[in-house]
Amino acid sequence: MHHPGNVFVVSAPSGAGKSTLVQRLVQSVPSLVFSISFTTRKPRPGEVDGRDYFFVSDATFDAMIREGGLVEWVQVYGHRYGTGRDWLKEVLASGQDVLLDIETTGAMNLRRAIPDACMIFILPPSAASLELRLRSRGKDSDEQIAIRMKHARHEMELYSAYDYLVMNDDLELAYRQFESIVYATRARRERMAPAAQRILEGF
Amino acid sequence: MHHPGNVFVVSAPSGAGKSTLVQRLVQSVPSLVFSISFTTRKPRPGEVDGRDYFFVSDATFDAMIREGGLVEWVQVYGHRYGTGRDWLKEVLASGQDVLLDIETTGAMNLRRAIPDACMIFILPPSAASLELRLRSRGKDSDEQIAIRMKHARHEMELYSAYDYLVMNDDLELAYRQFESIVYATRARRERMAPAAQRILEGF
Repeated sequence: MHHPGNVFVVSAPSGAGKSTLVQRLVQSVPSLVFSISFTTRKPRPGEVDGRDYFFVSDATFDAMIREGGLVEWVQVYGHRYGTGRDWLKEVLASGQDVLLDIETTGAMNLRRAIPDACMIFILPPSAASLELRLRSRGKDSDEQIAIRMKHARHEMELYSAYDYLVMNDDLELAYRQFESIVYATRARRERMAPAAQRILEGF
Repeated sequence: MHHPGNVFVVSAPSGAGKSTLVQRLVQSVPSLVFSISFTTRKPRPGEVDGRDYFFVSDATFDAMIREGGLVEWVQVYGHRYGTGRDWLKEVLASGQDVLLDIETTGAMNLRRAIPDACMIFILPPSAASLELRLRSRGKDSDEQIAIRMKHARHEMELYSAYDYLVMNDDLELAYRQFESIVYATRARRERMAPAAQRILEGF
């Protein structure tokens, strides 16, 4: 997939504070568009079709896979999630950057489809602090928290496949680093070389 | 040269606005130390030894080269400039980052000595705008400006050896990108992997 815009992928174990960072980033940084995934699971209370996900039937998802309409897709807890190819192509062709918030498995698939995607992993300060955050949300039973911690460990094991590791200890510092990765990537030689070449030719 | 701190190198054609960006960066970003070069040229009015340069004799500079005391050095217009090895080692070992403001030739030498140095090139928006800035400073004759423009072209020709190209059209945007490169580099996997590994082991 050739494109002028940048693709950013962000993953994190549940409870690392990724959603807060992502929301702020998308609101603050111009020309950065959040990618909405397709999913076969049903909307949860408060979730809106076309804002949180594109909710589709199994048959529609099957057809998208068959027709190559997904850049990557994964199955998690019996439901499927994927990134639409046409939408992504269009946004990137317009010169805007795209941010994908996806789990590690999907991220690994996406890296294969878009090798120069910029991969960002949000780290919790420690396992203990992650468990504390999960408990303080008060949404999960002890058993569910144990499952989430096990899942978090699996996610953590893939940190070395990412280009950047942002430690979310101090939120302001973490946000500054997160945002900086986007701005720095926009200044990378690969992206700026055509502009530099044009300037050089004016000398 | 193995080190825990990051080395940033910034180069630009004269008049691209590098000094303004560098001063602001060094004042704003914590744990970033500006590298002071050794030189054999005489101080210009207003220049202070130990602040702008370390002004040394030819004999001292010769001795530093002989004893391997310089990470890189170059000769420009009959004067020599170089980066001291001991000072650089000490600052990096303390975990602080170092910013070197050096010409392209010295930057190429430095890259050989420190392959993972982060190389940043400041681009003028155009050759015409660079010439205009040089003229508006009112410091140079037409002949001197012609020489500077020719030299600027030589510097520009090396842009592709740099990791990042920051276009200095809008100063605020350019500064934001410049600063972002420093913060993003601090979050690179290579730097953060030991911390991530420690966190993973806590799960």
